[in-house]
Amino acid sequence: MFENLPPQITVFEVGPRDGLQNEKQMVSTDDKVALIKALAASGLKHIEVTSFVSPKWIPQLADGAEVKKALHLADDVQLSALVPNLKGYEGAKAVGFKQINLFLSASESHSKKNINKSVSEALSTMAEVAKIAKADGKRIRCYVSTVFACPYEGPVAPSQALMVTEKLLAMGVDEISLGDTIGAATPAQVASFVAQLKTICPLPKAALHFHDTRGTALANVVAGIESGITIFDSSIGGLGGCPYAPGASGNLATEDLVYMLHGMGIKTGIDLDKLVDAGLLAQKILDKKLPGRYLMAALATREAQSAGCV
Amino acid sequence: MFENLPPQITVFEVGPRDGLQNEKQMVSTDDKVALIKALAASGLKHIEVTSFVSPKWIPQLADGAEVKKALHLADDVQLSALVPNLKGYEGAKAVGFKQINLFLSASESHSKKNINKSVSEALSTMAEVAKIAKADGKRIRCYVSTVFACPYEGPVAPSQALMVTEKLLAMGVDEISLGDTIGAATPAQVASFVAQLKTICPLPKAALHFHDTRGTALANVVAGIESGITIFDSSIGGLGGCPYAPGASGNLATEDLVYMLHGMGIKTGIDLDKLVDAGLLAQKILDKKLPGRYLMAALATREAQSAGCV
Repeated sequence: MFENLPPQITVFEVGPRDGLQNEKQMVSTDDKVALIKALAASGLKHIEVTSFVSPKWIPQLADGAEVKKALHLADDVQLSALVPNLKGYEGAKAVGFKQINLFLSASESHSKKNINKSVSEALSTMAEVAKIAKADGKRIRCYVSTVFACPYEGPVAPSQALMVTEKLLAMGVDEISLGDTIGAATPAQVASFVAQLKTICPLPKAALHFHDTRGTALANVVAGIESGITIFDSSIGGLGGCPYAPGASGNLATEDLVYMLHGMGIKTGIDLDKLVDAGLLAQKILDKKLPGRYLMAALATREAQSAGCV
Repeated sequence: MFENLPPQITVFEVGPRDGLQNEKQMVSTDDKVALIKALAASGLKHIEVTSFVSPKWIPQLADGAEVKKALHLADDVQLSALVPNLKGYEGAKAVGFKQINLFLSASESHSKKNINKSVSEALSTMAEVAKIAKADGKRIRCYVSTVFACPYEGPVAPSQALMVTEKLLAMGVDEISLGDTIGAATPAQVASFVAQLKTICPLPKAALHFHDTRGTALANVVAGIESGITIFDSSIGGLGGCPYAPGASGNLATEDLVYMLHGMGIKTGIDLDKLVDAGLLAQKILDKKLPGRYLMAALATREAQSAGCV
């Protein structure tokens, strides 16, 4: 075990989009921009900053264009936006996003409930957007939800996500983020899934997106790393919760992921202390504690130090 | 990876002692007894129910004898008590404990601050108690704290815990629980430590005790399982917090551990739903939410179901 750890892992930050989208509060454009700048300052090079889904569905991210226009970050920080269809793509393109992120589900019920389309219909929409985005020279990522389990169907057969992955690769999608949407996966399942995945997908094109709803996110990351995955999604402070179990944890916290990777001698290019600064800022913006374990421990230690106890 | 998973893992529940000892509130004897009965009802066979440390130091567990006397559980549930010295041992023996749990630290600074003894002095005290307990036919477990890191010294060399383990084995200690007291370990460290441990200790005698302070507990369990460990400590709901970072998470939550093990096809003999009942009882007793992820998700789902939302 751990005899062939990769020297480097790419951390893909989804907090400003996937996180804020699942928070009830509305956050001001200025606060979003400040948070994204704090995330970039920590060394994160891949940040999903907003979405161009209709404000009717996601009012929290209605200011996507303004957020992008206010960001003037170094060229090596890849900012991206979630787009559901051609209209969303045009919105993202208009403000200069070089990467766009598509999404669909592996399970039929989630697809129907989430976007009112079958998986096959969703694939058609993605193909339509991907064709134009490719012609425009954009980098394309696509999220596949409910890879391991579905909130409506329970366990999902690996063949579902594999079929979808093959079709996305055929469309020229550059990166596919395979998501455990309800945080139900366990490490042996992850290892078994990746073993199948690599027969149809080059692993450098695959990312894993875990939720910590049942505490297993980092354990699943370990299984993913051991299986050859080198890109993992996470959210600052675990921002976002779980839409299917209100009150429970959702996204894997970026600080927990980075702490573990660094402890294993794997480089991320991220300054963990600056990441805690960004987490603290997110807490201030939302005026609530975030669930990330490392963040809690780091802030408790900072408080004790400033009180002269340590 | 995961080609030689063990069919069964032993879960050692420390909530009623290690958990409650680190909670500020005083819990009534009746509530303690009800919680321990609920834990046993879930199928847990190893429960540390109290300590016989002086009430001057741990007033929360001053009623250890009363708790034991009120418990009438099946013979196959191994109840145990923490004892710091001969006086404590006599207290535990007087109420019929068949297993006693000793403790000491791998790092000198933690040993000094925790029990005002050097590691060597602590080993002498343990030897004294172990000799008498063995003669009385008791089963003896010993906790080794600060195996990976010390709150005062930082990283601890594996040789420290290995030296202590060798001496404990020589005393006839039956089981040694090696603890990541401040929750700083990462999986590669765990795998490396266990590889060294097994050169001096039969692995069936070794347990691992992880804290989730930085979110890595279950990831460390995975590394432990892959390395051959089959006994893990945990606390209902993650009861107990971290004494070195107030407000942060402490003990690994029993439900998170059991959920992951079952998901990997490993038997524990524990009913996860009844474990949630015990976690809910612990929350009611302490009148606060506990940090265990699975518990949060399960209770959120139960609430949604009773509200007719799911």
